Amino acid sequence: MSKDKRGGRPLDTVRPVEIRPGFHQLSEGSVLYRAGGTHVLCTASIDEKVPAWMEGKGRGWVTAEYQMHPRANPVRREKRDGRERPLGGRTREIERLIGRALRSALDLERLGERSIVIDCDVLEADGGTRTASITGGFVAVALALYRLKQTRKLVEPVLRDQVAAVSAGHVDGQLALDLCYAEDSTARVDLNVVATERGDIIEIQGTAEGEAVPRTDFDRMVDLALEGIGQLCRVQRAALAEAGVELDTLLMKR
Amino acid sequence: MSKDKRGGRPLDTVRPVEIRPGFHQLSEGSVLYRAGGTHVLCTASIDEKVPAWMEGKGRGWVTAEYQMHPRANPVRREKRDGRERPLGGRTREIERLIGRALRSALDLERLGERSIVIDCDVLEADGGTRTASITGGFVAVALALYRLKQTRKLVEPVLRDQVAAVSAGHVDGQLALDLCYAEDSTARVDLNVVATERGDIIEIQGTAEGEAVPRTDFDRMVDLALEGIGQLCRVQRAALAEAGVELDTLLMKR
Amino acid sequence: MSKDKRGGRPLDTVRPVEIRPGFHQLSEGSVLYRAGGTHVLCTASIDEKVPAWMEGKGRGWVTAEYQMHPRANPVRREKRDGRERPLGGRTREIERLIGRALRSALDLERLGERSIVIDCDVLEADGGTRTASITGGFVAVALALYRLKQTRKLVEPVLRDQVAAVSAGHVDGQLALDLCYAEDSTARVDLNVVATERGDIIEIQGTAEGEAVPRTDFDRMVDLALEGIGQLCRVQRAALAEAGVELDTLLMKR
Amino acid sequence: MSKDKRGGRPLDTVRPVEIRPGFHQLSEGSVLYRAGGTHVLCTASIDEKVPAWMEGKGRGWVTAEYQMHPRANPVRREKRDGRERPLGGRTREIERLIGRALRSALDLERLGERSIVIDCDVLEADGGTRTASITGGFVAVALALYRLKQTRKLVEPVLRDQVAAVSAGHVDGQLALDLCYAEDSTARVDLNVVATERGDIIEIQGTAEGEAVPRTDFDRMVDLALEGIGQLCRVQRAALAEAGVELDTLLMKR
Amino acid sequence: MSKDKRGGRPLDTVRPVEIRPGFHQLSEGSVLYRAGGTHVLCTASIDEKVPAWMEGKGRGWVTAEYQMHPRANPVRREKRDGRERPLGGRTREIERLIGRALRSALDLERLGERSIVIDCDVLEADGGTRTASITGGFVAVALALYRLKQTRKLVEPVLRDQVAAVSAGHVDGQLALDLCYAEDSTARVDLNVVATERGDIIEIQGTAEGEAVPRTDFDRMVDLALEGIGQLCRVQRAALAEAGVELDTLLMKR
Amino acid sequence: MSKDKRGGRPLDTVRPVEIRPGFHQLSEGSVLYRAGGTHVLCTASIDEKVPAWMEGKGRGWVTAEYQMHPRANPVRREKRDGRERPLGGRTREIERLIGRALRSALDLERLGERSIVIDCDVLEADGGTRTASITGGFVAVALALYRLKQTRKLVEPVLRDQVAAVSAGHVDGQLALDLCYAEDSTARVDLNVVATERGDIIEIQGTAEGEAVPRTDFDRMVDLALEGIGQLCRVQRAALAEAGVELDTLLMKR
Repeated sequence: MSKDKRGGRPLDTVRPVEIRPGFHQLSEGSVLYRAGGTHVLCTASIDEKVPAWMEGKGRGWVTAEYQMHPRANPVRREKRDGRERPLGGRTREIERLIGRALRSALDLERLGERSIVIDCDVLEADGGTRTASITGGFVAVALALYRLKQTRKLVEPVLRDQVAAVSAGHVDGQLALDLCYAEDSTARVDLNVVATERGDIIEIQGTAEGEAVPRTDFDRMVDLALEGIGQLCRVQRAALAEAGVELDTLLMKR
Repeated sequence: MSKDKRGGRPLDTVRPVEIRPGFHQLSEGSVLYRAGGTHVLCTASIDEKVPAWMEGKGRGWVTAEYQMHPRANPVRREKRDGRERPLGGRTREIERLIGRALRSALDLERLGERSIVIDCDVLEADGGTRTASITGGFVAVALALYRLKQTRKLVEPVLRDQVAAVSAGHVDGQLALDLCYAEDSTARVDLNVVATERGDIIEIQGTAEGEAVPRTDFDRMVDLALEGIGQLCRVQRAALAEAGVELDTLLMKR
Repeated sequence: MSKDKRGGRPLDTVRPVEIRPGFHQLSEGSVLYRAGGTHVLCTASIDEKVPAWMEGKGRGWVTAEYQMHPRANPVRREKRDGRERPLGGRTREIERLIGRALRSALDLERLGERSIVIDCDVLEADGGTRTASITGGFVAVALALYRLKQTRKLVEPVLRDQVAAVSAGHVDGQLALDLCYAEDSTARVDLNVVATERGDIIEIQGTAEGEAVPRTDFDRMVDLALEGIGQLCRVQRAALAEAGVELDTLLMKR
Repeated sequence: MSKDKRGGRPLDTVRPVEIRPGFHQLSEGSVLYRAGGTHVLCTASIDEKVPAWMEGKGRGWVTAEYQMHPRANPVRREKRDGRERPLGGRTREIERLIGRALRSALDLERLGERSIVIDCDVLEADGGTRTASITGGFVAVALALYRLKQTRKLVEPVLRDQVAAVSAGHVDGQLALDLCYAEDSTARVDLNVVATERGDIIEIQGTAEGEAVPRTDFDRMVDLALEGIGQLCRVQRAALAEAGVELDTLLMKR
Repeated sequence: MSKDKRGGRPLDTVRPVEIRPGFHQLSEGSVLYRAGGTHVLCTASIDEKVPAWMEGKGRGWVTAEYQMHPRANPVRREKRDGRERPLGGRTREIERLIGRALRSALDLERLGERSIVIDCDVLEADGGTRTASITGGFVAVALALYRLKQTRKLVEPVLRDQVAAVSAGHVDGQLALDLCYAEDSTARVDLNVVATERGDIIEIQGTAEGEAVPRTDFDRMVDLALEGIGQLCRVQRAALAEAGVELDTLLMKR
Repeated sequence: MSKDKRGGRPLDTVRPVEIRPGFHQLSEGSVLYRAGGTHVLCTASIDEKVPAWMEGKGRGWVTAEYQMHPRANPVRREKRDGRERPLGGRTREIERLIGRALRSALDLERLGERSIVIDCDVLEADGGTRTASITGGFVAVALALYRLKQTRKLVEPVLRDQVAAVSAGHVDGQLALDLCYAEDSTARVDLNVVATERGDIIEIQGTAEGEAVPRTDFDRMVDLALEGIGQLCRVQRAALAEAGVELDTLLMKR
């Protein structure tokens, strides 16, 4: 049954991902990121200064904004976040997650007193928009850093790690990777993991909707997520390569 | 000199326009509209009801939202409209214009008690974003109406007119059509015209920045705009045809 | 039929206008402006500095606020704009129009680093409040400039043009000038024109509610509006003269 | 010394008051109220229903809004309350006071399920704006009740009391009535009293700025205020009489 | 009858008061103040600077915030002030009262350029929360000043007066002191008095709900309130003494 | 070194916890919860209806609000959340967490169409305020359910699980349980776990500030947290027993 919703996709495999670097031409780095029916426009904008509260510390800053297109769902147009109502708690929560995740990918001292703002505009949503924003956002950041390198504003690499994110959950009694909306809305538990290519954990958020989850199931979901993040890191790397950017040249040596 | 900024484009010719119907798959109608460096995602969402204040009148409603992507400009990321500040007066003014313009294209009685909301997300801006939103929005609306027709929710045509919009202004002492940002920012006067394919006027907004404009210049700019609207109507019609939609089948007979 | 609503007033004539200069004593310039049943209190306040974003450029600034009294209509008290709801889009649109219109009347370089804020409080409304605000606001500005001249803060004239505004529209199938509310609410089209005494155009805003308007009708409405602006300029000049201010002494030489 | 600021006015006398009934023609009752340099436009609007939370109780409601014109002071334009900042605490406090004061003048059961909203727009301010709003507001309410009586919507009188308000304070060591701004800004204590023509107290608000005030001084200020309220009641009565309204015909019998 | 609601308490006696100094350990001064069923947590926070608009004048500042716990009443949880609705007018009015009352207790010049902010969180409410906030707030301020004295930041006393507050009103036809909610909700009139230990008046606020109140009743209520303030001053003094603080050492000499 | 900050407390032991049931008397259930220097007032309010969007489904609802007292920190008063700035993203995030955590403890069908709102007011903060809110909030909910049982509004138990929460992190290179602020602010990683007495996981949130964390460290922190949750469940059970409530009588049978 779960296979049908997944269109035959194995339980430990992420959805087909398409990454179009440079879709947005005015920002320093951008991708149109598509994972199944979830489409996110990620742009990375460089600003040669930091927020007032960070000035004079010699460190850079990375932050994110996330916005759902009012018709990102197949059923009915929703109100635009921030209009006729304050910015939603869910939106703020996701923005903070994206910001922390991508901030941890960089060495902020090496970045110097400049900011990177990642805008994640979800054009179409079919589950997994926050993890798509992080995985796509990483590529946009890498492209923006490449631009800084090309223009000689950055000489040394500042990327500490390659970072991606994915979700895992329960579908029809089975643990599975990267759920689409139809799967997710029946899921008993939802786990989002942000990790590095090497499998070290940056952020983990798991919520049992309804019943609590045994520790063993929880551990298995982390395994699945780390497996999926490995798959996504390969796609990120390939997309950058096609855009002429060798990821290793941007990564700091260990 | 003005020729350089226009890249050799004649003074009475609109910028090259590219229309990609169906770019956004979840909405009933959509286009990615590109006029030179101005890129707008226009979606039309159908809702089978009207706002509370219109209920029971047997008439439909059309409205629009307009949002600038925070990095829609080449220089620096701006704050997202509606965050950390109220929705700007300029944004509200443009939304009202788009709504009026596309509302006037339809016979609201014939549409019946349903709403069409057009979302115009300016992804990249190089001048003329409000007129691009109207011209692209019209195609999105036509596609949504075609969908209603295909699903037999509408039997009779409800489009009264084909509608497009363009600007005219002064560049380096000469009157010219469809100014890009570099031209517009030095313009003494800015005129936006919304009109039908036949050249009847729906909306006209002209502002002299600085000195007042002689009546004769003003009339000449209206001529130019109506010429440009003719050019744009041909592009709209072709884009719809390529998407398999014959515009005349959606238009009411005169 | 249209004659009755107009009380016998010819189609090319503005409503009777009464201007009371100095009604508000604390502001540098003020008028109580009455055009038929539309009453607007216009005050011009001088501030010997400019907004932060304009400092150091040696130029002045002119801006406007517009507010409808909650009982400006004969039927029912409305909520006060800005209370229990954000400032409306219509209000912001009108404020921007008034600001642009009166800003264009002055040479901002000559004004020097000072601001003029025009407050237009509509006490009673019977159509044409935005054009009344501009026509009355011009007189308030002229009185404030006269005060600056009297106190020797300004030596040279800074007024480039005499400016007024009026609307034109359709009533019962005929084109007519300066519609009151009863006429306007049945109008197919509404055109607002701001122009100089010489007939040069500063701003033009025309909207067809419902059907599009033939170009010839549109041109005829501009003719009517320029005729009406001539009439209003004579009233402005007379009101200033009665207040002891010779308008020509405030106008820059051509 | 205090005599100079008061222009020779005795310490136990209110400022010269001018009341122009019917200044605002669209509301059911209105006055332009002038007490010295303090000018308030008071309108009373009748609505034939009550707020949702009062429906079905068979009682009426009276409420007030108060707004300072941005240039109500001689020195500098202030921001308009409710724009670019939330409605101020002082404004809300005054509105609640005016509402309570005028509500207590009516028998709400007899008024029936209808609302009276009093809008007090302070056009020019020279101290005592809240008491002017109450004293002027009472006349506007009386005129609106007279209108209800004329149109036979009310048959029995609903006014319980004639109500007015005034302030008292210290000026240069002496207790005095109805201080203007120059006096008030140096006052050690400010007392506002709302009372009936017979001298019964509706509301009393006294604040010592700085040092506490001996009980005997406080009692003397109440005496002065009740004396002033008697003077104002005579002016209210005369203004109504001139407008053709005999106050006693609106007052309930004791 | 009124005796029952008051539980046998005489008409000229305040409710039993319990003051727990130091309940909140992080603030410079605090009390948990209980008067019958009204419980208020008062904290006084010292900040070694003043608001921007007061800088450089060599004077200190005292201000207050007041917040009702959403379940401060026995019946039903209310919305938290400031969430899903703007801060209420009643809250702002009370905050301003508390601030003025406690500000007047200090010599702001002697305090020097530092601020004291008193937070009054009403945990449970049974009438008289604003007067409890003032009476409890005074003790919190005294404790904070004692801390400044202990740390040698203040050498001279800065307290001008001992300050407390209480209400008086009508219950079942009799005048009475310090009404609880059940008494107050039937009261015809509500008087709040802030005064010094010596009986000088700082603030007085009296409102007749419904009928106006004869001057003699009003005077009698002031008598009662001053009597109650004497009682409360003794409780304040005792609570400070138990906390090891001799109030007289903090008071300026007369 | 880490021992000093922890005051000798072992790395796998929670801070001393004190629970005072019934501290707030007006709410259906309440505790003053103290874990070291973190003090939270938790109240549970029962409302015999559900939000509009849940009506008619026969299910109950549980939600939470969280507010930091402005002086919950030892250094300086902060602005009150929701005043002069919108409600913070962190606050909203924590509220949603508390709500989900305690909602999962109940069988909402069995609860019936009633709501429980948990207010968590952090009076003093020394790290771990969100987990303290959950652990204390659970006891407040249990007390409120006991009240429903006593008043026969609930006959069957509705609690599915005993729930508590705690954090784990790195201090000076060692993994440790329940960090206070001084420890937490130097922590490389922060993990919050909500779990049942049996060790099943309800929510897990882990964030690496700075470097990513190896999977093995992460697993060890989950172990520590589940150990701590066991300790806290014993304290909850004892506090309820002292208040005369046997927890097992409120728990559904497995």
